[in-house]
Amino acid sequence: MRVLGIDPGLRNMGWGVIEVAGSRINHVANGICRSEGDDLAGRLLSLHGQLTAVLLQHQPEAAAVEQTFVNKDGAGTLKLGQARGIAMLVPAQAGLVVGEYAPNAVKKAVVGVGHADKAQIAHMVKVQLPGVQLAGPDAADALAIAICHSFHVQSAGSLAAALAKAPA
Amino acid sequence: MRVLGIDPGLRNMGWGVIEVAGSRINHVANGICRSEGDDLAGRLLSLHGQLTAVLLQHQPEAAAVEQTFVNKDGAGTLKLGQARGIAMLVPAQAGLVVGEYAPNAVKKAVVGVGHADKAQIAHMVKVQLPGVQLAGPDAADALAIAICHSFHVQSAGSLAAALAKAPA
Repeated sequence: MRVLGIDPGLRNMGWGVIEVAGSRINHVANGICRSEGDDLAGRLLSLHGQLTAVLLQHQPEAAAVEQTFVNKDGAGTLKLGQARGIAMLVPAQAGLVVGEYAPNAVKKAVVGVGHADKAQIAHMVKVQLPGVQLAGPDAADALAIAICHSFHVQSAGSLAAALAKAPA
Repeated sequence: MRVLGIDPGLRNMGWGVIEVAGSRINHVANGICRSEGDDLAGRLLSLHGQLTAVLLQHQPEAAAVEQTFVNKDGAGTLKLGQARGIAMLVPAQAGLVVGEYAPNAVKKAVVGVGHADKAQIAHMVKVQLPGVQLAGPDAADALAIAICHSFHVQSAGSLAAALAKAPA
């Protein structure tokens, strides 16, 4: 199963695609969609186009987006929300169910603790995906989200299989 | 010129279309795109589809979206931001430049003061668009945004015309 993870942001939107087969996880691709300038609608349109191209190229079967950290800076939260709207929309347009994970759930899945910093996440992503070349911290976070989602989908699948085998 | 106004919201996204010819403004249509449920990506996809249908049906040549009020409720701001991302994206996908106006600028343009309440806005929208049937307060706000944008586009046009006529 091919899984896409997205770390939403208006300036830098990280993305990462992994291939999951049983307990094996392999890196497929990662990168960063970028937008700059004063024209918000144009930036969102650009992010939408770049992210759509990622989905067309890598054809993921599952997707997950990081739940945005809501902070005291309302203007920043609004900007992030607008970018996150695009990050949620694009995989939904491709017919995918979009998973959502809080940052500490992603960290716990990948690093083992909920309070890891960006360097630790990048390190553990490299350990789990040997030889990966990271496009940047946002791309590392996106791969971590994809890894987290693959764990959840697999355990949900195992549970469903166990339930199906169980005597009625 | 046909102008689309959008009042962004995740549950209720108001829209209104007016036709502007010189100083004359006529109502074309107004309505509310609705989304409900727990599946955020599905809701954003639904809003995107409904709003795209509005643009296809009414073919506006200009669009404007209300600038969201940033409040202390971070989770609410994030939700609104995600819906606003869709509201900005759809007209941009249709090739339109998307204007943005703060709520008090819209109120000032339509009511004459920056602190009008929803009932006053609906009243003045009805005065300026005689016979209009409003789909709801969000649709009235959206028509007010369209009216506000038409004023700005017209005065920008008048200024450009005056500058073009002025001796060098």
